[in-house]
Amino acid sequence: MPEFLELLRPNDAINLFKKNLIDFKLKTELIQTESSQYRVLAKDIFSQEDIPSFSRSTVDGFAVRSKDTYGSSDVMPAFFEVIGEIRMGKPADLEIKQGQACLIHTGGMLPNGADAIVMIENTQYSNEHEIEVYKAVPPGENVILKGEDIKKGGHVLSTGTKLRASEIGALMALGIVEIEVYKTPTVGIVSTGDEVISPDKKPTPGQVRDINSYILRSIVEKFGGNAKNYPIVKDDKKSLVETLQKAHLENDLVIVTAGSSASVRDLTSEAINEIGPPGVLVHGINVRPGKPTILAVVDGKPIIGLPGNPVSAFVIAHLILGAIMPFIQGEDKQVAYQTSEALLTINISSAAGREDWIPVKQVGKNKEGIALVEPIFYKSNLIFSLLSAYGFAKIDPDVTGLDANSKVEVIII
Amino acid sequence: MPEFLELLRPNDAINLFKKNLIDFKLKTELIQTESSQYRVLAKDIFSQEDIPSFSRSTVDGFAVRSKDTYGSSDVMPAFFEVIGEIRMGKPADLEIKQGQACLIHTGGMLPNGADAIVMIENTQYSNEHEIEVYKAVPPGENVILKGEDIKKGGHVLSTGTKLRASEIGALMALGIVEIEVYKTPTVGIVSTGDEVISPDKKPTPGQVRDINSYILRSIVEKFGGNAKNYPIVKDDKKSLVETLQKAHLENDLVIVTAGSSASVRDLTSEAINEIGPPGVLVHGINVRPGKPTILAVVDGKPIIGLPGNPVSAFVIAHLILGAIMPFIQGEDKQVAYQTSEALLTINISSAAGREDWIPVKQVGKNKEGIALVEPIFYKSNLIFSLLSAYGFAKIDPDVTGLDANSKVEVIII
Repeated sequence: MPEFLELLRPNDAINLFKKNLIDFKLKTELIQTESSQYRVLAKDIFSQEDIPSFSRSTVDGFAVRSKDTYGSSDVMPAFFEVIGEIRMGKPADLEIKQGQACLIHTGGMLPNGADAIVMIENTQYSNEHEIEVYKAVPPGENVILKGEDIKKGGHVLSTGTKLRASEIGALMALGIVEIEVYKTPTVGIVSTGDEVISPDKKPTPGQVRDINSYILRSIVEKFGGNAKNYPIVKDDKKSLVETLQKAHLENDLVIVTAGSSASVRDLTSEAINEIGPPGVLVHGINVRPGKPTILAVVDGKPIIGLPGNPVSAFVIAHLILGAIMPFIQGEDKQVAYQTSEALLTINISSAAGREDWIPVKQVGKNKEGIALVEPIFYKSNLIFSLLSAYGFAKIDPDVTGLDANSKVEVIII
Repeated sequence: MPEFLELLRPNDAINLFKKNLIDFKLKTELIQTESSQYRVLAKDIFSQEDIPSFSRSTVDGFAVRSKDTYGSSDVMPAFFEVIGEIRMGKPADLEIKQGQACLIHTGGMLPNGADAIVMIENTQYSNEHEIEVYKAVPPGENVILKGEDIKKGGHVLSTGTKLRASEIGALMALGIVEIEVYKTPTVGIVSTGDEVISPDKKPTPGQVRDINSYILRSIVEKFGGNAKNYPIVKDDKKSLVETLQKAHLENDLVIVTAGSSASVRDLTSEAINEIGPPGVLVHGINVRPGKPTILAVVDGKPIIGLPGNPVSAFVIAHLILGAIMPFIQGEDKQVAYQTSEALLTINISSAAGREDWIPVKQVGKNKEGIALVEPIFYKSNLIFSLLSAYGFAKIDPDVTGLDANSKVEVIII
């Protein structure tokens, strides 16, 4: 293993990885817009219509010719003949002439002749067929014109947009009930280790239950992928090559976790190199935890080798997978995880020359609403240290620690 | 409608709503732990085992009796006879006696007699069966003892915990492959309006496509519910009562969106009161947008009446549903949405005495990493204004606006 100072920093490793995956693109598929939340658009969307498709009122009130209201006020109301009501969902079948008004509801179609709406609060019936108007309205007041939101042919959404409630609503407003999105990336997960057993079994001395397969499955799903777990592989190159080949064939991306000992790490990297070119690009990253990370590309598909330690695997899955999942989906976004600024409540130390990610829990907020976080100290690096965790705080390689009240970037988990 | 100043603020309305839902609890079900991400635990979890189940090494190195290393240093190494290697996944079948050591890998079982591990970096083979040790280790160094993470019978997770990758990993480590969680809340969504048509249809003049059903479905799913859309209901009390009754019977929670005109709002509240007691609790909230919101309880189940305007429905669905969804799932968390602090880039005004939520887009970050946000100005309140939105920024009722550089709370959408 090269020494820390010769290793790439996580961001440089990710950039190198991306450069080698530049030709990797997921296939696309047509899906129902109503079920498209969190999917990524594979095509630009243009409007085939003017939106709104007719000029409409934005308030409850009376449609009028604006010039008939000029000069009207509380002390000097203007009088209007009420000639009817615009029914919702129907074409406006009235025509407003000088001195006339008609009742209109929010969303109602502006009748011919009218160019503004007086809000109901600024009117009063003087008799059954007549209102007093207490406020002058300029042309266009309380009206949204045909095509004012979106013009026919207008650009609405770009390829690479991850769809949220707002985008789904906009697509529905345009009548676009089916859209082209990138297929959900499939991620094969391979756990290895002579000591690793299925979680439904009782470990005998020396054995531990597989938890990485399930942590990684959850993280893959959080990042918008479909995970497929493979049976646990023994620390034996032939078995590992076979399972990796199968996982590589069946998925868009493969994650393999190995033990943390040097001998087993080398096994993983040798196995990856056997299944195809170019193979391992990065073997070791200047980060803690997670130094023994492997980044590889085989026949154009990414393979990520994660340390077997669950906390290391957790951190690196966020850093690497969290950057690669949006990338392979052509997403217009750098990372799939949420980050937040936070303030440390106590001093923490760190070795210089290495990027550290420290599990932290939230202990409150300061008066400006910034999260206050405290490192979670742990010995074994076991997953239990993350039960109360808010996320991981970053310590840059050029510092040897941070004082209390330092601002840190946190990956929220 | 009561005036703004007589209306409850959103938080007070939510608290009143919760008080009336205190006896509403979802049923629970047993599910596979591996598929439990984002579900809410319905039972406390205790460990049935010591974790780890055996004392193990946390590094690659040599297991030794710590006292045999006392005084060893670079200039004065201690010599140890290497009597073998601990195989991964097997019981440690060696016994370490005075002056002896054995090779051990990360996660390997501590052999009898040994009480510490010397890291491989601090050793060197002097011949095939002997190593020099350059560093003294105290007892327990680089060892995690049986039960040191979690003791048998220890409390691991509390009811109300929303399960993430870390909790799923911890449950797997304990061998808990099936867990009791609250059932996913089902939410019936009823859109109303004579002018509203299905999105796959082409609107004739006066008509608009239903988008609220789909916005709300996406928000419900984001907040961990299963949404069920009902056919669009005309503005007619009999039809509305029938559909509400059906939706109320078939779901844990019902959302109904109505037009924004006063007459239609009253229709919704009358219809809700007809289907059962106690009926409408809150009719109007001191917030903009979203003033005409209705909060009701019928036979113990919540019904939320949202304004028909999509942006209003969007905001209120976050504020109200975002608080009620975790509550009815017994979740140990106040709201289902993410919030963030942000800085305004320009001045914005607001009417005093009312809580405002302003759509904002992110225009950058300041040097401390805080999001810089700019209000999105919109006229029609249509959903297109939210396409570039980062979220909604809050303006408290006791201010009449905020200056540029003011810190605001943002609900991230």
